[in-house]
Amino acid sequence: MNTETTTDKAGASWQFAIRKSIEQVEEGIELAPKFAENGTLPCVTQHAESGEILMLGYMNEEALRLTIDNGFAHYWSRSRQKLWIKGETSGMKQIVHQILVDDDQDCVILKVTLTPPSAGGSEASCHVGYKSCFYREIKPSENGPRLSFTESEKAFNPDVVYQGTENPTKL
Amino acid sequence: MNTETTTDKAGASWQFAIRKSIEQVEEGIELAPKFAENGTLPCVTQHAESGEILMLGYMNEEALRLTIDNGFAHYWSRSRQKLWIKGETSGMKQIVHQILVDDDQDCVILKVTLTPPSAGGSEASCHVGYKSCFYREIKPSENGPRLSFTESEKAFNPDVVYQGTENPTKL
Repeated sequence: MNTETTTDKAGASWQFAIRKSIEQVEEGIELAPKFAENGTLPCVTQHAESGEILMLGYMNEEALRLTIDNGFAHYWSRSRQKLWIKGETSGMKQIVHQILVDDDQDCVILKVTLTPPSAGGSEASCHVGYKSCFYREIKPSENGPRLSFTESEKAFNPDVVYQGTENPTKL
Repeated sequence: MNTETTTDKAGASWQFAIRKSIEQVEEGIELAPKFAENGTLPCVTQHAESGEILMLGYMNEEALRLTIDNGFAHYWSRSRQKLWIKGETSGMKQIVHQILVDDDQDCVILKVTLTPPSAGGSEASCHVGYKSCFYREIKPSENGPRLSFTESEKAFNPDVVYQGTENPTKL
């Protein structure tokens, strides 16, 4: 075990392991995640009961650490360039039941259940108002692929739930 | 509709739409994906029957186009910096049943079924030999989180299936 147990500058009581060998990373029991050059790794968030994939977010070291320690999903917001506690604005928190890591430890899965929006509506994850961010299917057509909606109704009204906040989608 | 139907330099018969507005991207039916600065977007690959998440890969424009047109999963290999037809070496192809795109169109999900490795073994996706790349769970312990295996047996022998090829995991 190489994981230090000293308290680091952020006040954390444990540290990520240093990546030393492919065997350690792929077949070991140490958590030695690889963050990309921008300091993040992708996180796939899946509903713990239905198996539905809800969103793909990004985590920096702090977001991953806080998610592990606190049991609520934390991400790194690329549009706002800040730590993003999911549900902070909307009330739509993600309660973490399981966290999985992949072979080379540069991606995680969160299996979560959801809390409904504070301003009313059904449980959901997507800022557009749908339950999942993946509410459209790519379908072939004569002139190339088109999108077809797989969710027919919004779970909540995004204008109410996210009133006064900037849309995270960038062109 | 802004999608061009002319044949481009790669000989393709359709083109991705140009991103023009948030409404078009989030609520429209045009496929207008956003590739990151490195020319790729993440792709979550999920078993169409079990809902199990098998892997996270990356696609460039060509990989996404070929996946849509051919019905087999194509990725961009970041380690080899080339188009990667999944199963080309191993025989473990991914037959695509559905492709979903997220709200801001910078991530896709493939729902797939699998073909078994040519050299023998059960159906799988992970180069380490497990069915899913996500074969370990992050579990708390006294000295910080440790990994616990969720798959107990390898589906195939990676030394046989990937004989003579470089391990894609980087430290």
